Amino acid sequence: MVKIGVIGGGQLARMMIPAAINLGIDLAVFAEAEGSSASLAVTHVGDYRDLGELQKFAASVDTLTFDHEHVPTGHLVSLRDQGIRVYPPPEALSLTHDKIVMRGALQKIGAPQPRWSVTSSEHDRESALVEVGGFPCIAKLPVGGYDGKGVRVVSDWSDFGDWLDLGPVLLEEKVDFVRELAQLVARRPGGELKSWPVVETRQRDGVCSEVIAPAPGLSPSGATRSQRIAADIAEGVGVVGVLAVELFETRDGSILVNELAMRPHNSGHIFTELSRTSQFEQHLRAVADLPLGDTTFISDSGVMANIFGEVNVARASQTLADFPQVKIHSYQKPARPGRKAGHLSVVGDDPHELLGVVIQARAILDSAGYDGGHE
Amino acid sequence: MVKIGVIGGGQLARMMIPAAINLGIDLAVFAEAEGSSASLAVTHVGDYRDLGELQKFAASVDTLTFDHEHVPTGHLVSLRDQGIRVYPPPEALSLTHDKIVMRGALQKIGAPQPRWSVTSSEHDRESALVEVGGFPCIAKLPVGGYDGKGVRVVSDWSDFGDWLDLGPVLLEEKVDFVRELAQLVARRPGGELKSWPVVETRQRDGVCSEVIAPAPGLSPSGATRSQRIAADIAEGVGVVGVLAVELFETRDGSILVNELAMRPHNSGHIFTELSRTSQFEQHLRAVADLPLGDTTFISDSGVMANIFGEVNVARASQTLADFPQVKIHSYQKPARPGRKAGHLSVVGDDPHELLGVVIQARAILDSAGYDGGHE
Repeated sequence: MVKIGVIGGGQLARMMIPAAINLGIDLAVFAEAEGSSASLAVTHVGDYRDLGELQKFAASVDTLTFDHEHVPTGHLVSLRDQGIRVYPPPEALSLTHDKIVMRGALQKIGAPQPRWSVTSSEHDRESALVEVGGFPCIAKLPVGGYDGKGVRVVSDWSDFGDWLDLGPVLLEEKVDFVRELAQLVARRPGGELKSWPVVETRQRDGVCSEVIAPAPGLSPSGATRSQRIAADIAEGVGVVGVLAVELFETRDGSILVNELAMRPHNSGHIFTELSRTSQFEQHLRAVADLPLGDTTFISDSGVMANIFGEVNVARASQTLADFPQVKIHSYQKPARPGRKAGHLSVVGDDPHELLGVVIQARAILDSAGYDGGHE
Repeated sequence: MVKIGVIGGGQLARMMIPAAINLGIDLAVFAEAEGSSASLAVTHVGDYRDLGELQKFAASVDTLTFDHEHVPTGHLVSLRDQGIRVYPPPEALSLTHDKIVMRGALQKIGAPQPRWSVTSSEHDRESALVEVGGFPCIAKLPVGGYDGKGVRVVSDWSDFGDWLDLGPVLLEEKVDFVRELAQLVARRPGGELKSWPVVETRQRDGVCSEVIAPAPGLSPSGATRSQRIAADIAEGVGVVGVLAVELFETRDGSILVNELAMRPHNSGHIFTELSRTSQFEQHLRAVADLPLGDTTFISDSGVMANIFGEVNVARASQTLADFPQVKIHSYQKPARPGRKAGHLSVVGDDPHELLGVVIQARAILDSAGYDGGHE
């Protein structure tokens, strides 16, 4: 029996469990603390920054993969040198650790992206600014940002003077985008690659709020280009597993790469109900080096809405009664402001109608029983 | 958080785990032995015939439900008398313990069924035989039969003389059926009831081999009658959870009840891919007294094929490669002759084409790597 070890006990590890059960793959999870979202499959609780603990865990599995990107690259290289399969490979995964390194890698691959530059010392700041078209532009801390943290729209050097003192800051042109898209693909070690149709992601306060699949009204050319971009990156970087490419669609119809994630991604949750193969099943197949599954959509469309209040299914009775077609996914996490605690999804014919349905369902769920973090 | 306890660690308990993860329901499984199919959720290993062990387990959950029907009714009544919710209720579940009791209950409800009688003593045998139309007829041991065991087509008293000495034997007319169907419904404690479309089940050597959903070519009246029969039984008996009603479709278009099961059932596995709500999710919703989910089919049809050889996904690579649209479900059980070790499913437009696909996929899987019980 194949045994896959997952570093990280969050909701992504949690949602790999159903796929592992179906496929007959043994899953073991390395969690940071007791009571994690993936607790059912947790076999080790410890600190992922401790190489010794990682080695102990790795010895019990055939292949290591991840719920998050935070394990130090050096540790992963050591593990691989000891003969442990690590997917995605440490070199690929390390691109997600530093946004400046990522921009450089994308440039080498030839992926279309916003104009970008780096402020390294005080004297080259102005030329870096010129390269991205001047203020206003986007400033990003290269390390540690996510869900809108570490990203600012800046109109003056004083808007991010606190960051400039810390070291190099990534500058990006302020793209005139009409919406954000996400393209997910999965790749096996030998190169087999499968894509899902590109989706639209809707953000609120820098965090993904809803996902509509496939992206409504996108031109066939836009859809093809999105798939091509993600395939080129997956191949160029040597990703193994799911790769999520966050994209901007600009007013003039360009598709530009915003961010990368090398694991199942919030924008792909809708595939669990909508595609023949969920991103969790596909990720496990890829890292176990099994043939990839069919990504065809079973319905015309689907919509996913994130939930930020605690999901208590017993108190969600009204939502379930009013919307029998809506699926609830609870991550069994206590609520914390801005932290995803679950999601809703629905599939059908008309994406705008489906969006209305999940937003209504979420409104009931939110008003019906959330108590702000008490379990 | 709702906590559901499942007695029995087989594949039905195993397949409840994904549904529990999605809904955010805590699942605890009482298994008979270590290394069971549902081992990921096992919290107690013991003997389900031991009331003390059942009590200890029941104290840790909110509601008890079942992977099998073998727990003694008296134990379940005791547990319920101690305030533990037991679903389905012991009285309902007990009908499945004795086929004679079941026939009597169905008669009271007015469900259409084959003519039946009971051979209790030597002197009434002939009149019992007359009631079912004489030989050949079907003889059934009232207790302990499943998957064709304890059932014989008999043409003479000597064909089941060994049974007649054991006690009463159930006789049933030999129904001139054209095929077998299965109607699944789920019922909540308060009476809410949802049905899936009726399916066709194909048997080989008395064991279900394939399931086609919905039953191809069934008249609308036949479909409506099947749903009505199952709804009447669920209501009449007070089932809580999934009820599977195995049916005969006769040459003259009648629908007659063959057997009952009060739990998720092999004939409903296809709903995991085909219906908006799987039987496992619906069972958990029902026993947790949550509103039931939409049972609409997402595709026109689906086909499920049971696998009797050991399922080893690593060795199933060829099947996955040739049939990316087929889903594998492994129960992580070593193979034993005639024992289901997994299933395949596929959804699409044309049921006959789908049947061809799963049968081909199963043939590859069987030849590709089964080694007859070695793990």
